[in-house]
Formats: sequence, C-alpha cells, structure tokens
Amino acid sequence: MLLNVERCHEMMERRGLDAVVATLPENVTYASGFASQSRYFRHGQQSYVLLPAPGRGEPAIIVTTSSLDEMVSQADVWIRRIYRYGFFLIEHAKDLACDSGDQRLMELCNLPDHGTPLDALCAAIADSGLATARIGIDEFGLLPGYFGKLGSLLPKATIEPAADLFRNVRAVKTAEEISRLRRAAWIAEESIASALEVAKPGVSERELGLAFHGRTVREGAHPVLGSIGSGPGSAMIHAEPGDRVLQSGDVIRFDVGGRYRHYLADVARVATLGEPTARVRQYHRALHVGVLTAFEMIRPGVKASDIFDAVVEAVRREGIPHYQRGHVGHGIGIEGYDVPNLSPSSDAVIEEGMTLCVETPYYEIGSWGLQVEDMIVVRRDGVESMMSTDGGLKVLAC
Amino acid sequence: MLLNVERCHEMMERRGLDAVVATLPENVTYASGFASQSRYFRHGQQSYVLLPAPGRGEPAIIVTTSSLDEMVSQADVWIRRIYRYGFFLIEHAKDLACDSGDQRLMELCNLPDHGTPLDALCAAIADSGLATARIGIDEFGLLPGYFGKLGSLLPKATIEPAADLFRNVRAVKTAEEISRLRRAAWIAEESIASALEVAKPGVSERELGLAFHGRTVREGAHPVLGSIGSGPGSAMIHAEPGDRVLQSGDVIRFDVGGRYRHYLADVARVATLGEPTARVRQYHRALHVGVLTAFEMIRPGVKASDIFDAVVEAVRREGIPHYQRGHVGHGIGIEGYDVPNLSPSSDAVIEEGMTLCVETPYYEIGSWGLQVEDMIVVRRDGVESMMSTDGGLKVLAC
Repeated sequence: MLLNVERCHEMMERRGLDAVVATLPENVTYASGFASQSRYFRHGQQSYVLLPAPGRGEPAIIVTTSSLDEMVSQADVWIRRIYRYGFFLIEHAKDLACDSGDQRLMELCNLPDHGTPLDALCAAIADSGLATARIGIDEFGLLPGYFGKLGSLLPKATIEPAADLFRNVRAVKTAEEISRLRRAAWIAEESIASALEVAKPGVSERELGLAFHGRTVREGAHPVLGSIGSGPGSAMIHAEPGDRVLQSGDVIRFDVGGRYRHYLADVARVATLGEPTARVRQYHRALHVGVLTAFEMIRPGVKASDIFDAVVEAVRREGIPHYQRGHVGHGIGIEGYDVPNLSPSSDAVIEEGMTLCVETPYYEIGSWGLQVEDMIVVRRDGVESMMSTDGGLKVLAC
Repeated sequence: MLLNVERCHEMMERRGLDAVVATLPENVTYASGFASQSRYFRHGQQSYVLLPAPGRGEPAIIVTTSSLDEMVSQADVWIRRIYRYGFFLIEHAKDLACDSGDQRLMELCNLPDHGTPLDALCAAIADSGLATARIGIDEFGLLPGYFGKLGSLLPKATIEPAADLFRNVRAVKTAEEISRLRRAAWIAEESIASALEVAKPGVSERELGLAFHGRTVREGAHPVLGSIGSGPGSAMIHAEPGDRVLQSGDVIRFDVGGRYRHYLADVARVATLGEPTARVRQYHRALHVGVLTAFEMIRPGVKASDIFDAVVEAVRREGIPHYQRGHVGHGIGIEGYDVPNLSPSSDAVIEEGMTLCVETPYYEIGSWGLQVEDMIVVRRDGVESMMSTDGGLKVLAC
C-alpha cells in the first residue's frame, strides 16, 4: 500500500478529525492506489477518497463513472467501496461468461449515479454516519467554490482544510513507496548513461535528450524532468535540450527524472567532454563534498536547517567561497517536492523513512552549471542511498 | 503566437473587463508562451499572466525567480515585462563576454524581488494603472484562499472569476495552435503504426505500449494518453497495456495521444489480428459512419447538440440499434477537453477555427471495445481533417 496508514491515523487523532478526504490527484492516488489516466489530459476532474478514523467506517472512493474500469484494472486500488457520479454507458455481452474483473465492473456500473462529485461525497459521508463529524478536506484538489459548497451540503459537520495533513503523512514513506522511488532513481541513472553513450563532439543536445527519454520509456517510466544543458547552456536551470552541438571541453549537466508507477525521480549528474578545467574540477568537488556532508549528518532527529547550514559551509570551505542557496534538498515521492525542505527557514526535523533529494546546484551565467543531486532514504542509523552511481564528475573520452 | 488576441480582447470588451489574469498553467502557457518545466513535477507553483485590454498597458508575466531562465530560453515567450518573486541565486561570470540571452537573464535576475506571487501580481497591476480597474481572474490556477486575498490587496479594484473566459477564447485556435495539433495528431498516428508493426500473436500489450510511446518520444512529443487494450480488455475504457499476450482474432483498440509543444492529441483506431467477426465489422462500420456523419454536418453555425443527435442516430441506423453516448466529441488544444463539447445538453455553436475530436466509442464488457476518433479543424466551408489515416478497421495479417 502507498498510504502510511498508521501515520495518517495518528495525525488525524492529533487534530481530532473523524475523517479526512483526499482531493488532489496525487493525494487520491496516495490514499487509494487509484490513478485516473486522464489526470494529465483533463484539468479539474474530481475524484475523492474518504478515509475515516479507525472504527468510524470503511474508506471509500468517489469517482466519475467513466473511471470505473480503472477501479477494476488497477492492482494498486485497495478500497472496495465506490461512489460514482455522472453518465457514461458501458454495455455488457448478454450471453458471454464474464471473468471476475468483468463481473466487478458490471456491479460498479450498476451502482446508483449520485449526479455530482460533491453529492457522491456527501452520500459516502452520510452512509458512514459522519454527517455530524469533524472532517479534514484536502482543499488543493477541489474546484473553486467547492469547499464552501461542501459546508452547506453538510451543515452539521465541521469541515476544515487538511492539505497540510496529507503532505505531512506523505513525508514518511512506506516500503512500497521506497521501492518505487528506488526504481525511479535507477531508471534516471540508466537514462543518463544512455544519453552519455551518444555524447561526443558534433552530437546535438537534442540527441542526448532523445536517448535519455527513450531509455526512460523502455524502462516503463514516463518522461517528466529532462534538463540537459551543454557548454554555457548548462548554466540554464531548466536547460531544454536544443540544437546546440557538443564541443570538446563542454560541461554537460543533467537534472532529470521520470515517473515510475506514479513516483518521481530527481537526480543530477555532470560530465565533461574531455578534461575539465581546474576550476570545474574544484567547484564540482566542493559541491560533491557538500552532498556528502549532508549524508554524514542526516539521521532521525536532526534539524533540516542545520543540514542546510553544514552543507553550504562545506561547499564554501571546499572551493566555492561565495556559494549561496535557498535550499539544499527536498523530500521526493508522488510529488517532486515533498516535505521536508532542507532550507534555512525550515522547522522540519528529519524522521526515519523520509526520502530526500540532496542537491548542491551552482549556476554561473556565461560559464556553466554544475550540480550533484542524489536520492536517499533516512534509516534509523543514517542515510541509505538510492543511487547506483556516485555523484563525482564523469570525464568522457573525447 | 498561441493566444487568440482578437478573440480575447473581444470577450474582455463584452464583459467590460480592463484586464484578465491567467493562472492555470495551461492558460499561462496559452497567454504568454511560457511553460514551467516543473509543472508536471511540483503542484501549485504560481505563475500568472496579466493581459490588459487594448490601450490599458503592456502584458506582464509574474514568475518565480527560478523560472527566469525559461523566459530567456523559450522561443514562444512573447511578453517582455517580467515581475519576479522569491529567492534563487544565479551567479554570473565576471570577465566573460556574455551573449544576448545571458545579458537578458542577468537583467531579469536584477529585477526587484516582490516576495510573494500575489505581491508581484499586484505590483504589475498597479504599475499598469489598473489598481481601480475591473479585472477578470482565472480562478482555477490560484492556490486556495488567493482569490479572496487578492481582493483585499486590491481594495479599489473589481475582481471577478474569468476561467470561463479563457476556455472560450481558447475554443477558436490560432494558426500556430492548429499547426501543433496537426503535428500531435500525426505523431499519434505514426506511433499507432509503430505499435501495429510489432503486433502479432504471442506479443504482449506491454510491448505494443513500449513501441507506441517510444515512437512518440522519438518524434519529440511526451507520452500522455496510452490506452491500448486487446481481446476482451479492449472494452476497458482506459486499458493500460499489460501482460496479456495477443491472440489470433483479437480486437486491438487504441485511444491515444501525446503532447507536442504543449498541445495534445487524442486519436482512436481499431485493428484486428486476422479476420474480424461479422459483428465486429458491422459495429465498427456503424461507428465509423457516425464520425463521417459529423464531418458532413460540421461547419460554422451548426449546434453541437444537433451534431450529437445526428451521430447517435447514424450509428443506431447503421448497425448498433442500442447505441448510447454522453458525448460524441470535444474540443482539443492545450487541454485535452477544450470547448465545445458535442453533447445533447451543450448550447455551443460551432465556429470557424475550432479544433475537435469527433469520436464514437463503444465498450462491451466481455466482448471488446471499438472506437473511431479523428481530429479535425472547422473551416469556413466545413471540416478539414488533421488525420493521415482513415478511421476504418485495420485488419492485420495473422
């Protein structure tokens, strides 16, 4: 299961909530396993997951009728109680023997149509005896006006925003999430390797990008991040691979990652085409030491802001005296920026089971950009890396 | 330019608006050309585009500092007035000659930091002399609470929701949009062809999916929709290609499309592995005639609901007497479901320059799913197809 049930129940109890409702597509998938394929195609389609506190009823998914087939076909979906809304016709063969999936889909199609998403949600809440309860609603995925409308539809309930609860629950990953993140990280590294295989003078950035994304797709992931910049263009934060042709001596910076079974990777590596200058070597080594400094410090109980301070200080001491950053890393999961943020203003404390991207980018317009970014899991006694390559500068023959 | 400026100004005038503000990532890209690479990675990051009415000032983009490089590198960005917010450090080489892009990025980095997205937006509005104006805000991309907060920050302005204005402006496409949609449609068809090249008994759906998405990536697009179902699984609306192995006699249904330079394709085709049954032939032909019936009717001035009625009637008459649908097509563009919807309850009237997906899917649990879906542009005198293949049933040698 993706959902960290214990942590969710604990945070609900701490807030005195009888139930929470996921609405943001990422939170819906996290809470239920259900992922609408149309999420990246159609903005604002409403799906919800009702998660009652222990002893307050069974979880339920609220979904548009045209997504019922996904309830049956997606192995991740663990919630059986479904409320549907909207007209969508699926026929069934009268005389054919149906398999169990087909049977289940026919059952779901025969559920009552609740008309609108909010009416379906209210039916699920009422059926669970929660119409007078205190309910936390993830306000980020609701259409504008729906939060207020829900209050009118449930006049005896206490409704409060709960997007932050989902973000905090998601910060500590389950084993299944860690396994997907590890695979996503591996796919990103393999895809970098595929891009570097074609890297030589005369080859365009675009060709590196195609090799990168092509490998990502072959490994069963979806392309998401694909910053690949060369030469002075490597200083562009979001370098989109373009027509520029690689030259001997170039810095090539990757800040990349795809989505594997809904989980994201975010990895950065730098290669040079032939021998780097002394300054590139010195700066890159300093950035790498910064990341390794974080690895030595990270363990449950350490403050995110202390990690930030130590990393920036290490990079300055090791070779970039003017180094400045807003953050040196962030959580990663079903969203690319999960809790915590490794920033000076963060009040987060590291917990066992968090998954982090630790990164020390450096962008210098006119020169190049350099970056090390690794994905790790926080274990009881420190850091467990998700990477299979180290963050050192990779010097390609040229 | 992606934005249909004349239509936008006309709709603003009709509503008495002095300015509109895009907030949804799709609307931001549509209005300005700017597309944040992190849009698919990070939920809720705020970028806005201020579009004043003619004579009321220059358009402006409001953006987080870490996206400034995208203002420079993205050739689509046509707005020069930028308001930034947030800390993000980009260094620059002191003694190196910078090219014009680097110069521009350094200028942008030196703009004042407005702190928060709403403060930056208010600065842009005030600098345009619009602090007492009537302003339409696309409410769909704002974080919860921001709409009300904006009202307090601009106490003398009249603020009203305007997401529907953007949807209506976007319904009639510019030449640049049509050219991208045409390319997206072509990539979808070529990707179907690549998948069908590997289709034979013993090959898994997954292999078809990899061939499909691999081709999409090679053509410079991003995978989005990828429903590929075979045999009884073709009846699953969102068939995710899985381990099932193709068998002789299978129906293979594609409902697919990628994203090319921000514009989406949505195309459906059906093939059979060897000769289809008479019922598959009859049903598929009826569905195809339904789509062709729409093509004969569609021209400026025709009601969307009349098209719906005619299509459903044609499919019933031609071989599926019990055919029912909620809609037989929809607009397509930077979102997968643009205006208009070809449904019985729609009050939309077809206009020149609309781009439509016309579709007649039929899902029969236990048997198969069949579907024809073509992309077209509405021209003065009727339909111009975006397709290079016809929607007929494709019978593969087996």
